[in-house]
Amino acid sequence: MKNVKSKENGIRSRQHRLRIRISGLRADAIVVSHPADVRYLCGFTGSNAFLLLSAESATLLTDSRYTIQAKEECPSVRVHIARRSLLTEAGAFLARSRKKQRVIFAPGQLTVAQFDALRKAAGSKIRWKGVPSLVAELRAVKDAHEIGEMRQAALLASEVFSELLPIIRPGTLECELAAEIEYKIRRKGAEGSSFETIVASGPRSALPHARPTSKPIAKNELVVLDLGAILRGYCSDITRTVFVGRASRRIREWYHAVLEAQSAAIGVLAPGVTAGEVDAAARRVLRRHRLAQFFTHSTGHGLGLEVHEVPRLGRREKTQLAQGNVVTIEPGVYIEGAGGIRIEDDVVVTETGPEILTSAPKEFLEL
Amino acid sequence: MKNVKSKENGIRSRQHRLRIRISGLRADAIVVSHPADVRYLCGFTGSNAFLLLSAESATLLTDSRYTIQAKEECPSVRVHIARRSLLTEAGAFLARSRKKQRVIFAPGQLTVAQFDALRKAAGSKIRWKGVPSLVAELRAVKDAHEIGEMRQAALLASEVFSELLPIIRPGTLECELAAEIEYKIRRKGAEGSSFETIVASGPRSALPHARPTSKPIAKNELVVLDLGAILRGYCSDITRTVFVGRASRRIREWYHAVLEAQSAAIGVLAPGVTAGEVDAAARRVLRRHRLAQFFTHSTGHGLGLEVHEVPRLGRREKTQLAQGNVVTIEPGVYIEGAGGIRIEDDVVVTETGPEILTSAPKEFLEL
Repeated sequence: MKNVKSKENGIRSRQHRLRIRISGLRADAIVVSHPADVRYLCGFTGSNAFLLLSAESATLLTDSRYTIQAKEECPSVRVHIARRSLLTEAGAFLARSRKKQRVIFAPGQLTVAQFDALRKAAGSKIRWKGVPSLVAELRAVKDAHEIGEMRQAALLASEVFSELLPIIRPGTLECELAAEIEYKIRRKGAEGSSFETIVASGPRSALPHARPTSKPIAKNELVVLDLGAILRGYCSDITRTVFVGRASRRIREWYHAVLEAQSAAIGVLAPGVTAGEVDAAARRVLRRHRLAQFFTHSTGHGLGLEVHEVPRLGRREKTQLAQGNVVTIEPGVYIEGAGGIRIEDDVVVTETGPEILTSAPKEFLEL
Repeated sequence: MKNVKSKENGIRSRQHRLRIRISGLRADAIVVSHPADVRYLCGFTGSNAFLLLSAESATLLTDSRYTIQAKEECPSVRVHIARRSLLTEAGAFLARSRKKQRVIFAPGQLTVAQFDALRKAAGSKIRWKGVPSLVAELRAVKDAHEIGEMRQAALLASEVFSELLPIIRPGTLECELAAEIEYKIRRKGAEGSSFETIVASGPRSALPHARPTSKPIAKNELVVLDLGAILRGYCSDITRTVFVGRASRRIREWYHAVLEAQSAAIGVLAPGVTAGEVDAAARRVLRRHRLAQFFTHSTGHGLGLEVHEVPRLGRREKTQLAQGNVVTIEPGVYIEGAGGIRIEDDVVVTETGPEILTSAPKEFLEL
């Protein structure tokens, strides 16, 4: 009950913060269509919905499949069940307004066809203002309820990794490991994986985005495992790299360099620090180890209702971190022919220092 | 080798057919961005790409993560690795043209922000023409290679269903069954599930879109299982409904009415028949059994590289079926409080009659 209440309070506070932003942009209302944004702002988990939010009202439009669900999930909004296309009804809803209104939409989240239909149905009293990522920016700062949920999702993924260790051995196929991972994620009560599980062994570990294949794990190989769960809507994302057999000194040195880079990046996470500074901290360590040229992606990304959110922790990113950001920290090195190493945790930015949500061991494991 | 060659021939023939459509619309080129469309037209399986096709050339733009993969997968096109945003480079590529060009885009598959960036980068020599679903319509007609792949994907899903029967028993949780299904799908070599697996038992079976919950299967309940695999890119989609215990006469009658409706709809599948006639055939049978009001969705949908494609088999749909269409036929009845029954197969439309790809048994199973 407390949980339900804190969630409801969170939702009302999000709507309040969005209204302040709308008014700051001298607009009257916003049309929200991206499912994760809709869920964030009113709790609705269905797939086909528009949320119209103005200073005075909040209305969720969805279709008749969701009549009961929408009323159960969304006590903070008026639910309207559309009989025709959602776009047409959302437009018609706006067209009812007596005065001219300026309405915000996200140009990155409506197709040209959707926007044309919406604009046509809304008529000439509505002036449209494209504002990218308004809700995405609100979502970047998690409240206590959300961080609690993400802690659970991260714990679940960490447990899956630890339980997997006994079957990472020569002969097991990459795709068998991936199937085991996804099975364990489901069995532990998650809705599913937050992205396509990566299991990449030997030379294939040098491909940052490798899909699991029918290649068997061999002796004396690196294995990169990158997995995540969606639990009650919230995503986790963890990577660990292990060695099957006894590793060479060179591979151990690479591993410890990546781990040191990861610790350094986690160490600088604090409100006010820029995303680029976090990325630079990881890169600086790898440069000292002469490995910087093998770190070919950015250091991390925001995490929440989606597996890739703002802020992006890349080179020269100016965004300042804030208390409540949850980000991945995942430096890696990828050396063609030899293999790859990546270590990734999910971390909350707080005033009192970083809180690491993922808990699987990070010492170099030789299996 | 034969398989690779027939796939390549298929791709060249698709490009040829699209060029005929472009020229018929008096345009010079098309920009294709939807990943399934790009895959269909050139074989590329990566996530971030644009295909530019004109009478003379076919160019795939993607990013540096896919340098090797794009060259391996796409012998029929020129591969261009973008250093900046794909949209900007695709636009710049078009801007190089010496003469004015009319370029087709799909308004339903570019966001307002993407289209604005593309249009800006392409400059004033390009005239844009929005044409919905041009590639989707080509994709609706599968060639022999594609039907072969879909046969495999359907067989895989059918096997999963049959292997699952022993564990559908009182006490098993819905989400455990869903996890088993997805595990088996992966273990059999599929890339994954083609949609979120549905396991809905007892009163929950009356919700057509129920997500698996932690509810245990109980004795004397209907259980609806709706699952599908993605195998080498192609989707399958199968539903079966079983009874745990001994069913009442009423439930048996409902089951046989749905099965009869399904057979009737499959029976009318032929080139030239309209989608609406197929839907009507299922509805007519259910009306005779006084169950038509409980059949609350459409009879089926196209299936291929995506799990929902055209043609949609709904009421009054005028689209004429063609040889090579692959569609689901999935009537159902949903009776609040009592439960739901749905039976679904994947079927190819051919000149010589329907070919059913899914093979799990359809007799009424009491477990």
